Amino acid sequence: MIHEMIAERAVFTPQNGEKFDLVIIGAGPAGMSAALCAGRAHLKTLILEKALPGGQIGTAYTIKNYLGFSKDILGEQLALKMEAQLDKYDLYYSRETVLDIEACPNELKVVQTDANHFYLTKTVIIATGLEPKKLETDFEKAFLGRGLSYYAQSDWKSYRNKNVAVIGGGNCACYAADFLAEYANHVYVIHRFDTLKAVKSLKEKILNNPKITVLWQSEVVEAFGLKKLEKIRCTNAVTQNATWIEVQGMFVYIGRIPPKEILHMGMALDEEGYVVTDETMRTSLKGIYAAGDIRSKQIRQIATAVADGMIAAINAEREVSRL
Amino acid sequence: MIHEMIAERAVFTPQNGEKFDLVIIGAGPAGMSAALCAGRAHLKTLILEKALPGGQIGTAYTIKNYLGFSKDILGEQLALKMEAQLDKYDLYYSRETVLDIEACPNELKVVQTDANHFYLTKTVIIATGLEPKKLETDFEKAFLGRGLSYYAQSDWKSYRNKNVAVIGGGNCACYAADFLAEYANHVYVIHRFDTLKAVKSLKEKILNNPKITVLWQSEVVEAFGLKKLEKIRCTNAVTQNATWIEVQGMFVYIGRIPPKEILHMGMALDEEGYVVTDETMRTSLKGIYAAGDIRSKQIRQIATAVADGMIAAINAEREVSRL
Repeated sequence: MIHEMIAERAVFTPQNGEKFDLVIIGAGPAGMSAALCAGRAHLKTLILEKALPGGQIGTAYTIKNYLGFSKDILGEQLALKMEAQLDKYDLYYSRETVLDIEACPNELKVVQTDANHFYLTKTVIIATGLEPKKLETDFEKAFLGRGLSYYAQSDWKSYRNKNVAVIGGGNCACYAADFLAEYANHVYVIHRFDTLKAVKSLKEKILNNPKITVLWQSEVVEAFGLKKLEKIRCTNAVTQNATWIEVQGMFVYIGRIPPKEILHMGMALDEEGYVVTDETMRTSLKGIYAAGDIRSKQIRQIATAVADGMIAAINAEREVSRL
Repeated sequence: MIHEMIAERAVFTPQNGEKFDLVIIGAGPAGMSAALCAGRAHLKTLILEKALPGGQIGTAYTIKNYLGFSKDILGEQLALKMEAQLDKYDLYYSRETVLDIEACPNELKVVQTDANHFYLTKTVIIATGLEPKKLETDFEKAFLGRGLSYYAQSDWKSYRNKNVAVIGGGNCACYAADFLAEYANHVYVIHRFDTLKAVKSLKEKILNNPKITVLWQSEVVEAFGLKKLEKIRCTNAVTQNATWIEVQGMFVYIGRIPPKEILHMGMALDEEGYVVTDETMRTSLKGIYAAGDIRSKQIRQIATAVADGMIAAINAEREVSRL
């Protein structure tokens, strides 16, 4: 598990109404890379993160494709190294969800949060990352935290030697199933289509693992449990057959989408809801930058998030020095 | 010093005329990041590097702005970690300079090198990085390796307790002067303009170090030495005064430019000679990608080079799988 390392260390807590050069929303790789740059440039910087630092990588398995680590590193270890690197710099940090950003006539922005706080800032970098796509069913809300989860890596410990279901058939669903099969008694992969959409080697692992059963062209339509999840009902789209399966855990991996909050912030989005920027990470709103997975772009990886964060911070610094 | 770690390990040596999925030109951060991706995707990949792996970072001092390293890391150490990460993958490697890339009618490219070799490949990633801008003087050629150098970090050991000159006044020149002042007897910074163009803290270090003298608005016009550099003659642009200064070393830091070879490869360049790409790192020539400092872009840093290399390799892989 990721600890609140930043919050436990000698970081500053912001005052309600305090003024900053830069507010960074999100402390994943993009946000931390931006903070590193901003810290080195002595910008007065506030990081607002609604969950724990690390972002999506904290929920990842082994990281193999971020250059510089000759030994395999777990996502949570990499997140801790990234946080530790920020220690040297004077940064403000608070655990709050940003609800809105408003522009004032005097070039300042007002950042409003769910803690009923507001902060004034010259520039903003939006680096919230993406959040899990929901099934949008009633049972999803009912069993969240009571057997239903979006993060296999964080929550697997409760399911040792139990039956679990993974909903989805993409790379992330397959990684989750492969990971869970090491600990669980049995893993059911419940997938709407008739092929897995994952890299070849991973697909083969899933299909050849006797502890994993894929239910093709199937959906979960009902869930039951007195206090916690006990069983789910799956229907097959072709045969219309319905089956109850006993599972104590259900992990939803049907994709990731931009968080709803950013819809209200007013900058241009692409048709899928990602924030449009230019090469300098500027959004359509002056003084507001976007970096990482939230940005409209081709490749969403740690390396590209880290580069985005740095570019955004360098340009925010240039803007601050001109104001 | 960087060792030829890749070459010493179990990497494959290419045969003249051999066919590849991908040829990567350059083994700096961009080239290594591309190689990591290509290796993970099982592309048959050849890396051609004219010098030593690591590229520009091997000649850098402490790296502080690449996220993931909580302790300061020397450029050469980071380069070795990057190389070690490639060990797990089957990659071909050779120390050769690429002279030209030619397109064949059958979608293959012919990569020609100074070793009189050619290689066939479906895709190419150009990640050569930049090279030091030359003074373009006769004495520069005469004293290269005999007192004149472009890399303070690699060559400082010969100049312990001696007098040295650094030519230039930008960030790189100032870092070099600051670094050399630790070992040398005295450092002369010879700069054409009347202010240093470096970050504030570095500028102050240079101006307040009693072991460093800045010669403003000055140029080196002559150099003398029987076997090695012994002294240089500097003129002041304002007073026209000329002075001989005794130095045993001269480090040229007047900027970095794209290597000449890439001019002949035929892809679109911007007005400064950098390779133009789109967001996917594609150049104007089909099957040829560019990544890292050679690319026409705003921010040239390790993080952006690593992201570029990954994006280029992912797109090269997609192209290979379609061919």
